[in-house]
Amino acid sequence: MQIAIVLFDGFTALDAIGPYEVLKRLPSTTLHFVAERRKIIHTSDGLVAMAVTETLADVPRPDVVVMPGGPATRELMSNEALIEWVRRAHESSAWTTSVCTGSLILAKAGVLSGLEATGHWMWLEPLREAGANPSSKRVIVQGKVITSAGVSSGIDMALALAARISGEDVAKAIQLAIEYDPEPPFDCGSPEKAGTEIVELCRRRAAAAKPKVPFDPDRFAREWAEQWNRRDVDAVLSHFASNVRFTSPRAKELMGHATVDGIEELGAYFRKGAPLLGTMRFVVDETIWDAARRTLTIIYDRHRDGGIQRACEIMRFDSQGLVREADALYGA
Amino acid sequence: MQIAIVLFDGFTALDAIGPYEVLKRLPSTTLHFVAERRKIIHTSDGLVAMAVTETLADVPRPDVVVMPGGPATRELMSNEALIEWVRRAHESSAWTTSVCTGSLILAKAGVLSGLEATGHWMWLEPLREAGANPSSKRVIVQGKVITSAGVSSGIDMALALAARISGEDVAKAIQLAIEYDPEPPFDCGSPEKAGTEIVELCRRRAAAAKPKVPFDPDRFAREWAEQWNRRDVDAVLSHFASNVRFTSPRAKELMGHATVDGIEELGAYFRKGAPLLGTMRFVVDETIWDAARRTLTIIYDRHRDGGIQRACEIMRFDSQGLVREADALYGA
Repeated sequence: MQIAIVLFDGFTALDAIGPYEVLKRLPSTTLHFVAERRKIIHTSDGLVAMAVTETLADVPRPDVVVMPGGPATRELMSNEALIEWVRRAHESSAWTTSVCTGSLILAKAGVLSGLEATGHWMWLEPLREAGANPSSKRVIVQGKVITSAGVSSGIDMALALAARISGEDVAKAIQLAIEYDPEPPFDCGSPEKAGTEIVELCRRRAAAAKPKVPFDPDRFAREWAEQWNRRDVDAVLSHFASNVRFTSPRAKELMGHATVDGIEELGAYFRKGAPLLGTMRFVVDETIWDAARRTLTIIYDRHRDGGIQRACEIMRFDSQGLVREADALYGA
Repeated sequence: MQIAIVLFDGFTALDAIGPYEVLKRLPSTTLHFVAERRKIIHTSDGLVAMAVTETLADVPRPDVVVMPGGPATRELMSNEALIEWVRRAHESSAWTTSVCTGSLILAKAGVLSGLEATGHWMWLEPLREAGANPSSKRVIVQGKVITSAGVSSGIDMALALAARISGEDVAKAIQLAIEYDPEPPFDCGSPEKAGTEIVELCRRRAAAAKPKVPFDPDRFAREWAEQWNRRDVDAVLSHFASNVRFTSPRAKELMGHATVDGIEELGAYFRKGAPLLGTMRFVVDETIWDAARRTLTIIYDRHRDGGIQRACEIMRFDSQGLVREADALYGA
């Protein structure tokens, strides 16, 4: 039995990992984390980076589809390739399931037409607009379609699914193996139970959460070059962490040592070096982004006085998106 | 406030992702997934591959330590560098916490000496041996130390912690945001509730679970070369998936097309090619393993009649650990 859990940039980690932790324990099943391309997938906060195990094309007819949700679900609804994959996979699946806003994708693929379905409580109205009959139940089974409520509900959904696939005893043994004997500290896990004040607080917090744009290496490199070209040292410095370590052959000349430690010393070095650039302009040639190592390589040309010097900077980003380590390579 | 969630090869994904999904929603906090080295960390089934965001050395004094557990916890107890990091981090932490068998690591670091503590129900006796006073409660707060039971309990633990860090209203809003209103399908999440039969089934299933050895690229390459050197085509074939796609300049000569599709055609090709190797011996020179892309590059020498030909095979593994795509490069 092939189980495909869909990943996409901006997914909610627990939406996928909750069902995974249950379904991986089923006998005689093979589990895949699928996405359009074999790459590293990031949550919208950039903190969880997970690897795709198979492409959608590699697993066209899974027995079980698990569609997680997440902050990027809205944009994902216009991803024709994924929607088409879900539509086709559902034709031959034994079970088609969703967690959280993943139900919006199922709805978009036509899986939920005329069916009662659930999803995150904040997204039930969009679910109606997408063609389902929304309900605030935690897990809803409609024929071979199972939808579940927000984030953590994927665990309940997967256990219900496990019982249907391998029988109640196996599902019970799995529930015991992951010790799913929840004791939430408060009785506020649904809007009805939480009461108006907590619902409002939750909505305000969601509204205030800064939408995180996925890191765009090309845009970063372009900005960085433009900031250097207008000699805006403060703008350049804003990309670096306070505990940055910067290595450059030029630092050796200007500061007496090739390695510059900390944002203050880096500022001093940049301010010393900027006037010496003269008419030099940076033109980005290529960027290489290694998501797993959060490392950006910028290959660029330094144009001056009709001559061009090829150069390279390698920058390693910390979890806050700031450059923690950098190496400038000018060929001295 | 710095929060460090420790990762290690063979961790249980939900142990880490449950607390992450809660704690990332706290105001004014920075969350890191830390490990000894910046690399891709795998669960023991090889399916979840997560990126480390900072090294242990990068975050020596986090305000909150979260130590997940997993199948590899036992081996991890002899990792002196990690144990020392936990010991030191605990000296200045505001909270030191664990999920599942992560409590064994806290115990090993001396954090639990004389304290009541919990962990996965199957691992309470080893927890006692490690110096803690085990108890089967779900979440245990002892001063600044919080331990929690198996796998899914990290969600309860993190919500209890969130309330202590940012107040009950914020914790309630987070619980509502992840819609943690659990409805486990069975009342069997602890051994007391599950009853003897399910406990026994769970134990049998755990005992039968084949311990997964982390993929060792050097060993694989060595075995592969030895299998070729003794012309054991069946042994070589055993590494390939049924739907393998193999490309080789030699296939062009022998089969009429450079790309061989499927294990049967690959077997035919290998059987045709093996006798033509004559006295050739393969000697592995170097292996490059890209864990994120599950791709192994084997650089090797083909020794024959006193001459050496340099060659390379690039193999992409599927989620079952079988080669799905391979490219042989002999320089034709």
